[in-house]
Amino acid sequence: MPNTNDRIRAVAWVDNRLHLLDQRCLPGREETLVINDCRVAAEAIRDMVVRGAPAIGITAAYAAVLAARARFAADGSNWHPGFEQDLAGLNQARPTAVNLGWAVRSMLERAAGLEGDPVAGLLELARSIHAEDIQANHRMGELGAQFFETGSGVLTHCNTGSLATGGYGTALGVIRSAWTAGRLDAVFADETRPWLQGARLTAWELVKDEIPVTLLVDGAAAQLMQQGRVQWVIVGSDRIAANGDVANKIGTYSAAVAARYHGVNFMVVAPSSTVDMAIASGEDIPIEMRAPEEVLGLGGQPVAAAGAQAWNPAFDVTPAGLVDVIVTERGVVEQPDLVKMTAMMA
Amino acid sequence: MPNTNDRIRAVAWVDNRLHLLDQRCLPGREETLVINDCRVAAEAIRDMVVRGAPAIGITAAYAAVLAARARFAADGSNWHPGFEQDLAGLNQARPTAVNLGWAVRSMLERAAGLEGDPVAGLLELARSIHAEDIQANHRMGELGAQFFETGSGVLTHCNTGSLATGGYGTALGVIRSAWTAGRLDAVFADETRPWLQGARLTAWELVKDEIPVTLLVDGAAAQLMQQGRVQWVIVGSDRIAANGDVANKIGTYSAAVAARYHGVNFMVVAPSSTVDMAIASGEDIPIEMRAPEEVLGLGGQPVAAAGAQAWNPAFDVTPAGLVDVIVTERGVVEQPDLVKMTAMMA
Repeated sequence: MPNTNDRIRAVAWVDNRLHLLDQRCLPGREETLVINDCRVAAEAIRDMVVRGAPAIGITAAYAAVLAARARFAADGSNWHPGFEQDLAGLNQARPTAVNLGWAVRSMLERAAGLEGDPVAGLLELARSIHAEDIQANHRMGELGAQFFETGSGVLTHCNTGSLATGGYGTALGVIRSAWTAGRLDAVFADETRPWLQGARLTAWELVKDEIPVTLLVDGAAAQLMQQGRVQWVIVGSDRIAANGDVANKIGTYSAAVAARYHGVNFMVVAPSSTVDMAIASGEDIPIEMRAPEEVLGLGGQPVAAAGAQAWNPAFDVTPAGLVDVIVTERGVVEQPDLVKMTAMMA
Repeated sequence: MPNTNDRIRAVAWVDNRLHLLDQRCLPGREETLVINDCRVAAEAIRDMVVRGAPAIGITAAYAAVLAARARFAADGSNWHPGFEQDLAGLNQARPTAVNLGWAVRSMLERAAGLEGDPVAGLLELARSIHAEDIQANHRMGELGAQFFETGSGVLTHCNTGSLATGGYGTALGVIRSAWTAGRLDAVFADETRPWLQGARLTAWELVKDEIPVTLLVDGAAAQLMQQGRVQWVIVGSDRIAANGDVANKIGTYSAAVAARYHGVNFMVVAPSSTVDMAIASGEDIPIEMRAPEEVLGLGGQPVAAAGAQAWNPAFDVTPAGLVDVIVTERGVVEQPDLVKMTAMMA
């Protein structure tokens, strides 16, 4: 790929171990966890060492290799039941991102056909899932960047970059491609409470890749649009329903409502593995509720008075009617609906 | 007043000193600054020891007493020039809240007519500004609460309670009154980044007054409305233009856009001293830009990567067209416009 804005990898397979950049420590410290156990990998997903739907899927694929290796070493003649049990546990780590289930199913299907030591066969599939994700991101970058006129301003939410994927990113990949193509004048990033993925991760990635970035609090996004500073809001997704409804990080729906109100375009960028044609609409997407402490405190310190409650959904659903463009590596769907989504996924 | 949900005072005149509850320390510590110098009071306003448009106005009134006392002690025959200089400095402390300028002008006018020691006369006016604010808040509480049907859910933004006013609060005063009247099923509060006035201050006040409160991140407000959990968004204001445009804490406009999209009502509660009939529309309201560090860090610690920029307007403007009701102590204006605002302020 000619694009040089692609220097970061959050998930890697090194010396037969799964390496995860611990995203909870960024941008302060760059620490890598070296993982040799599928259950530890599941915990890392649950605890948000790694996050972002595609990165979770890739992590799960490598974690399945760890599970198969351990189960085969323990009982070479009857390792499948234990392996399937491990992957069932892995599948429970987080509920909203469809890529996790997709990766688990892919690994189970491959494993079912393997005789003898399964490690090489499963590792091949995990590596190919990882490589195809990066390739898909570069393809989506090209497809999405075409929509921007020269001199555009864009706003993104959460982190959808190299840290959230196999590399390069989905929405942030489009921003990288558009920046490289000279189409962007300004990149704005919501800080994205409560986990601050925008402030901690997106800003870190863009600074690393020397793309200027301006952070704002999530509540300021509507005013940014009121002032005409952005022409596009561009986000990733954790699951897209068959009708084009989009589940993504909490705050996305708020940005989509504001975008429509101001005539700002709204683009969703996600690999086709994020599209779940088995889910008819966003109403059926399970939304993870996370601990109230994420809102009641900051950095482990309480902020709110004892006795206050908190409502902390990790995701929201943006109806297809608010989405102008969905970009996948298979192509682009404008004004998404069931017919167009079905045609793209066929 | 029969209402018992009114236990907190953030600004007080005690033993000839100005006492300010240091709101930067809440809810962790309840510390009071004892102030004897007008310039220190101006700094306290600038540094957000005290915030909230009405509370800033009351603080400025007491600070003017401090200025007059010091200037009269220094030169009993020619204290007016120094006094006016002090109040000019006070007036610069923060730009958006109109109540500051209103209080400064009121104190200057009273001082102009005073012969001999000005302290008693000015203190009388400051005390009366303070008392009238509390009285106005209770009146607004009654007027605003009438709009809620029994079983309503409300969402508020920032802090508009006893801490932001002389006592009781504007929007939070309406919530107190409506809660006491048994009309509310649920009170939600945006955490209100970057200063977290919702998490730190509003939750603290409501817990103190035993009113259940549920916090959410600002980006979740639209989803709360999507789920039908609130029928009203209710906020205060730092300045209301003659046409009914409303300047208030950053994030208010985003909530107003989402409210309109979901058919949720939007109420603004502010004393008539917040209405600035000299400002034709929101476009002419000066919006304070605060330090990028408030977004780039948390609690004094950097959060974003070095090299990231931030855009940090402290306020936004909600156009009158998105406002369903403005409540002042003079009465209620529905679907505000210049004609109705002029009639109320006449």
